[in-house]
Amino acid sequence: MINKRLIIHILGFLLMVEAGFMLLSFLISLLYREGDQWAILVSAIITAAVGIITFFLTRKFKQKMGKRDGYVVVSLVWVVFSFFGTLPYLLSGAIPGLTNAFFETMSGFTTTGSSILNDIEALPHGILFWRSITQWMGGMGIIVLSLAILPVLGIGGMQLYAAEVPGPVPDKLRPRIKETAKRLWGIYIIFTLAEALLLIFGGMKPFDAVCHSFTTMATGGYSTKQASIAYWSSPYIQYVIILFMIIAGTNFSLSYYAMHRQFRKVWKNEEFRWYIGFILLFSIVVMVFLMIIHGQRFEVSLRNGLFQVVSVMTTTGYVTSDYLSWEPFLAIILFGLMFFGGSAGSTGGSVKIMRIVLLLKNSYYELKRLIHPNAVIPVRYNGHNVSPRILSNVLAFAVFYILIFSIGVILISVTEPSVDSAFGAVATTLGNVGPGLGSVGPMGNFYHISGFGKWFLSFLMMLGRLELFTVLILFSPTFWKK
Amino acid sequence: MINKRLIIHILGFLLMVEAGFMLLSFLISLLYREGDQWAILVSAIITAAVGIITFFLTRKFKQKMGKRDGYVVVSLVWVVFSFFGTLPYLLSGAIPGLTNAFFETMSGFTTTGSSILNDIEALPHGILFWRSITQWMGGMGIIVLSLAILPVLGIGGMQLYAAEVPGPVPDKLRPRIKETAKRLWGIYIIFTLAEALLLIFGGMKPFDAVCHSFTTMATGGYSTKQASIAYWSSPYIQYVIILFMIIAGTNFSLSYYAMHRQFRKVWKNEEFRWYIGFILLFSIVVMVFLMIIHGQRFEVSLRNGLFQVVSVMTTTGYVTSDYLSWEPFLAIILFGLMFFGGSAGSTGGSVKIMRIVLLLKNSYYELKRLIHPNAVIPVRYNGHNVSPRILSNVLAFAVFYILIFSIGVILISVTEPSVDSAFGAVATTLGNVGPGLGSVGPMGNFYHISGFGKWFLSFLMMLGRLELFTVLILFSPTFWKK
Repeated sequence: MINKRLIIHILGFLLMVEAGFMLLSFLISLLYREGDQWAILVSAIITAAVGIITFFLTRKFKQKMGKRDGYVVVSLVWVVFSFFGTLPYLLSGAIPGLTNAFFETMSGFTTTGSSILNDIEALPHGILFWRSITQWMGGMGIIVLSLAILPVLGIGGMQLYAAEVPGPVPDKLRPRIKETAKRLWGIYIIFTLAEALLLIFGGMKPFDAVCHSFTTMATGGYSTKQASIAYWSSPYIQYVIILFMIIAGTNFSLSYYAMHRQFRKVWKNEEFRWYIGFILLFSIVVMVFLMIIHGQRFEVSLRNGLFQVVSVMTTTGYVTSDYLSWEPFLAIILFGLMFFGGSAGSTGGSVKIMRIVLLLKNSYYELKRLIHPNAVIPVRYNGHNVSPRILSNVLAFAVFYILIFSIGVILISVTEPSVDSAFGAVATTLGNVGPGLGSVGPMGNFYHISGFGKWFLSFLMMLGRLELFTVLILFSPTFWKK
Repeated sequence: MINKRLIIHILGFLLMVEAGFMLLSFLISLLYREGDQWAILVSAIITAAVGIITFFLTRKFKQKMGKRDGYVVVSLVWVVFSFFGTLPYLLSGAIPGLTNAFFETMSGFTTTGSSILNDIEALPHGILFWRSITQWMGGMGIIVLSLAILPVLGIGGMQLYAAEVPGPVPDKLRPRIKETAKRLWGIYIIFTLAEALLLIFGGMKPFDAVCHSFTTMATGGYSTKQASIAYWSSPYIQYVIILFMIIAGTNFSLSYYAMHRQFRKVWKNEEFRWYIGFILLFSIVVMVFLMIIHGQRFEVSLRNGLFQVVSVMTTTGYVTSDYLSWEPFLAIILFGLMFFGGSAGSTGGSVKIMRIVLLLKNSYYELKRLIHPNAVIPVRYNGHNVSPRILSNVLAFAVFYILIFSIGVILISVTEPSVDSAFGAVATTLGNVGPGLGSVGPMGNFYHISGFGKWFLSFLMMLGRLELFTVLILFSPTFWKK
């Protein structure tokens, strides 16, 4: 059976953490005094109260935490956080209506970045800070989830690099989470600070710099400006953001090694090399097209190409230009990149480079297997043979991804009049990217989507963010048996 | 090394067969005397001459035929047939230009049904007959390929039902091909005759009835009318065609059993049950929508739903109404069905029901595996455990399919201005369906596609028709080693 008391105990503890971040936003709102202070403070008090009460009421729990409990906690955290996270929006009146507020909060915690806001600059600073920091918190959650929890739960080939992660061996959950959090959150915070300083140095206001650092490192993509990064014309600022998007899309344990000067380990990592390779390949294609067809200068086309490719591929979702107005050829490439995602163990979402490489390699190896039917030819990855068990899991992930995408598009198209928007909305929420195609493209937003659509897309964000299985398994009859 | 003499010998033999079918078309053209007689006769003579010469020049060959030779022969047959098959079009002037003629012929032999013709009714009857019979020949080739050759070559899980196929055990190629051809072509011919008679009974002219029987049984979809099946308003004719499309999309060895009154074997077949299930599910969805939104009568919506779902799912590609003018919801469902395809061992193309079922089952089983990580839980199919070997091949197939589709869309979009048409053109040619979306939709055709586009799409038709691997393996360096 599920260890209910323990699960509620953990959720209570985490709600106190969420309340802490609300208090931080309250401090920011005090600096600007734009009328949102009390709303945020009350939100923090409610959240903290519920957290403290549930935490202490469930103090006496059985120590043993099973895998099933893990699945339930992880899925519930995102839902519970998103519900309480709506309080600042609702109480301040910044976003009226639970549906819109929940969509915006889930989009934050899942580091998606899809928004229902029509006028971001009209919001008070405290609320904008809260909006940005939901993504930063989501990023912290994802680092622990993907580097400490999922490998133990055996999801989606995450075991493949589990052995590579610094920290205790992956079978005890608690010490592992603690160690991972300590080591990798340190790096996460350092990078965030570094980016903020570099952006301030480039002329960005400190408030905007901090908010954008939060949402870059989380590959979230929420901006404090309606025009997103296009608001700043400075090439320097764009290059800084490109750099940190690339870092945020890299496995954080590789950053750990890099910080300890073990650069060989970084460069020898197969996923990292494919990741950089894909970025270069697609950026160059886009760049060449922008130079030839749009007559852009070398530097401009390089920057535009890099920015859009990195932003979509890492599932950040910042925008510097309306790439939907580019040729269909380029729009299709950027749409395709929504299915790539960052590296495993990064804050990037979607399918992820590791899985794509494994799928491509297996297909290529299959040709060899057909020619030599009696030879055993396993897929090699990072110098090791990949077990059929892991491949079958990656296969299952890919099929679920396509299945959920297809069903999603069909369901959304019932109320969404345009085929483009339906495809874009589902791809971008499931992949935690941010902007989609058509009316939900880089120049649009999700405000006009139907109520059902918003709840459904919020569910897709969570599904995608939690590597599908974590949530899907809860719907499996076997899970609740015995 | 490749057994070149044997390969050329086989091709020579098959060219004589092609010439035979040209002669048949010549006889038809004699009945109508519309100026195409001599063009078709000369085509037959050229084809026969090349066939006879190469056949006899390579009489002395080594008996041993390896798997590699199998791959080369199968791929070459479709190319060689398509080149010689252009002769009637070119010599009669019905289709000027090699590019257009080759596209139309490859679309015929691969039973795709995509056309570059703007005015089908303007063509002489001999040419129309040749156009229809290329699909029928293609269907014959596919039956032998998928039920006798591919299982031996080990492609795409085709082994899964190999044991089920009537005939000698699948390791000697020659006797197996002979047996399969004898038993299953008999059924193919019987069904073709039956459909033709039923269509004539319903008031269709004998010539049109025979041509449509050819292209139904091949799931090809070439019509003798520009408006396709919409030309005939008779519900009876549409129901007859629906029935035979369903039969053509069924594994022909199941039809063999049905003819021998072993109905239990048919109904116990898992793929067949899913196939019927998918048809019913999607037809009902479309039907309900047509009734509610379009206010169609019950019988009309049932017929429209069934016809379009069956036509696209079996990759036939006949049209009775412009389904692109329906809601995005329905257009998206029909687009998705382009990736289903008929049963394995039928004349239908695309991914095929068997593979889709295996992929879905593996994903569902993966949830169980995550919950019980120490249990070995293989996928069950038709009452047997599926080996990891076969699953990995099906996985590789699916990944190649998606990869080729994606690269195809990107390449076609360079010259094709609309995103819809690019997606539709690639999905429909790779899946051997026929009509696509946008400008290549059910009311359009492929005439306006660029020269490069037509050759590339022809290549995709062949790739899809030959289950990808048969062609891809020729591009693998390992294939040509040693």
